[in-house]
Amino acid sequence: MEIKKISGGIENIGKIKFNGIKEGKNGLGVVVCKGKVAGVFTTNKIKAAPIKLTMENVKSGEIEGLIVNSGNANAYTGKKGLENAKKMASLLAEKLEVDEGKIAVASTGVIGVQLDMNWIEDRFEEVFKNLGSGRKEALAFAKSIMTTDTFIKESAVRIGDVVIAGVAKGAGMIAPNMATMLAFIFTNADYDSIELRRMLLHALNNSFNVTVVDGDTSTNDMVLLIATGEKKIDAKLFQKALNEVCLDLAKKIAKDGEGATKLIEVVVEGAECDEDAFKAARAVVSSLLVKTAIFGCDPNWGRIVAALGYSDAEMDENITLKFKSKDKEVLLVKNGKIMGGEDDARSLLKENDEIKILINLHKGQGKGFAIGCDLSYDYVRINAEYTT
Amino acid sequence: MEIKKISGGIENIGKIKFNGIKEGKNGLGVVVCKGKVAGVFTTNKIKAAPIKLTMENVKSGEIEGLIVNSGNANAYTGKKGLENAKKMASLLAEKLEVDEGKIAVASTGVIGVQLDMNWIEDRFEEVFKNLGSGRKEALAFAKSIMTTDTFIKESAVRIGDVVIAGVAKGAGMIAPNMATMLAFIFTNADYDSIELRRMLLHALNNSFNVTVVDGDTSTNDMVLLIATGEKKIDAKLFQKALNEVCLDLAKKIAKDGEGATKLIEVVVEGAECDEDAFKAARAVVSSLLVKTAIFGCDPNWGRIVAALGYSDAEMDENITLKFKSKDKEVLLVKNGKIMGGEDDARSLLKENDEIKILINLHKGQGKGFAIGCDLSYDYVRINAEYTT
Repeated sequence: MEIKKISGGIENIGKIKFNGIKEGKNGLGVVVCKGKVAGVFTTNKIKAAPIKLTMENVKSGEIEGLIVNSGNANAYTGKKGLENAKKMASLLAEKLEVDEGKIAVASTGVIGVQLDMNWIEDRFEEVFKNLGSGRKEALAFAKSIMTTDTFIKESAVRIGDVVIAGVAKGAGMIAPNMATMLAFIFTNADYDSIELRRMLLHALNNSFNVTVVDGDTSTNDMVLLIATGEKKIDAKLFQKALNEVCLDLAKKIAKDGEGATKLIEVVVEGAECDEDAFKAARAVVSSLLVKTAIFGCDPNWGRIVAALGYSDAEMDENITLKFKSKDKEVLLVKNGKIMGGEDDARSLLKENDEIKILINLHKGQGKGFAIGCDLSYDYVRINAEYTT
Repeated sequence: MEIKKISGGIENIGKIKFNGIKEGKNGLGVVVCKGKVAGVFTTNKIKAAPIKLTMENVKSGEIEGLIVNSGNANAYTGKKGLENAKKMASLLAEKLEVDEGKIAVASTGVIGVQLDMNWIEDRFEEVFKNLGSGRKEALAFAKSIMTTDTFIKESAVRIGDVVIAGVAKGAGMIAPNMATMLAFIFTNADYDSIELRRMLLHALNNSFNVTVVDGDTSTNDMVLLIATGEKKIDAKLFQKALNEVCLDLAKKIAKDGEGATKLIEVVVEGAECDEDAFKAARAVVSSLLVKTAIFGCDPNWGRIVAALGYSDAEMDENITLKFKSKDKEVLLVKNGKIMGGEDDARSLLKENDEIKILINLHKGQGKGFAIGCDLSYDYVRINAEYTT
């Protein structure tokens, strides 16, 4: 069976119902999604209240619904913050007449400010009243979770009658092992929560966990995979499709990194091991000097070599280094020899907004990659003026 | 005996003679400095040719002179690069009639381009002819090693008739354990190279090694401590004075971080151990979100808490957090309670260009600090347009 991309985005996934509202910086989104669930959460020691609550609530492996607010992270808000997160859960639980421990809660936005619960309670009524399964309502949910995102991030595939559809928000504070990133992936497939967790972790290690925008890991990251259990499908095929959805969402997050003008993929081959390849790729994609050079369409590959050199990966000067975009490849360094492709590389950078940096360390069979974006004036503008 | 700061900068250190020239991006500096030497070099696996050569040449613990070029790093330049570095050493060695293995060579600038040896050989004659011990020649040397530096970095102290005087270049690519940073520290004190090395390492661990501009570790970092052996002084006092000189130079490097408008010092107390305190301080000073917030005079302390949370240091939400500049202190968080000092903190950020972030983790007795700078539009501008 073939994995087919759904061009529209999320809509009509089993009996799942969506809705959301966005008013200025504040947003509220609700999903009714009875099913099995697996979650992955931030590794930051300062965990936002909704993270603490939802980590607990998904332990049963079952979920009834999801409530998300944007504009306020409800992080570092103490006991009151946790009460407010619980209050959010209970709003939805009461309507659905289910245990409030079956509701997932997520938040994103500014840290250290208490939620405006009046606004949330008010808007909740309105949002809940108009829940639906169609494109309109799914889109309203996708919009409601955005913060500095400049476009909606969705990805959906179909394998026969099984659908996997995800929606994410990202923008800043994106680092490996997640960051201010929320992603909710829905499917009508039938798996228990243990299988879902295994498959989600596998998909994350090749998508969100190799994505770097600014290296800051947020207090609020959350990825949930929710399965309504209506359709059976081969697990290998499901994994492959889930990987595709996660990678697609991760690329969209990187491409919409705060102020980003270019998506950067760094692919490392020939490392001593896969771990080394990832370390090397991550160092390059995280380097501010590389990121600013790509923004300036400056093929300053010396900075890439310097980043490889401090990456902790086993290496020496015998490196091969290429830039690639679409079908065009420019060879800059071959087995340590400088090939003089700078002018072609500059044109390639100027003409494209998705750049691959291909590296061979000539040390072994290790392979890895990392995804990121350039660093522009707008990153500084957006982040210098966030709370003011 | 008292350690007195010398306001002028480097000049008249024993028999040491300086000179230098800067023409556009290219610079050449020469120092004749017969003495004992200790050196610390980049940890980057891709080491520039002058690094490889000078690591070898200082092993004897004795040195006769130093030759430095700026504008070209002579890094990733293969066998020819190493030949050129040796040629630089031999230019000076021939004039001094000493072994070329007694000359230190340093380079800073673009990676992957061969040196213009004709320019270097030509200018060398001119520079060597006019060597001198006075302020004019020392200043010419200090200027000759600058790249994107916007001001000369010098620091000098006197303890009785012992002088310790250092000159550095920094600007971008500054990370802990050094970065595109060259620092040359001269003294007329009498120590052997083993003592010098021990004291230099101690001083670096409390200065350059806790300084972060952009987290990139360069291929060319070098710190040399050169002692002409003319005067005796108590080792404890010398160490203290050396620490002061190194810290002063490190702060100047951070303050002149590419595009920086503010010097940031993060001081962490109450960590479980000193290592944790440094990790926490480093995470805060390295966070792009913190750096951009400080640039924007935005007292977004939530980003500081988030950085502490992912720093790997033992901690929980019981944090105390203050901003300080000169005599003014603003308490933002006390034992985990939000104190509402944002307006005062915003004024403090707007009115000062040297900001201290004081953190207490309330976990133990560990102390540490890190030095850095804000992230501005100019960092992006400078680095997006470096080679073009």
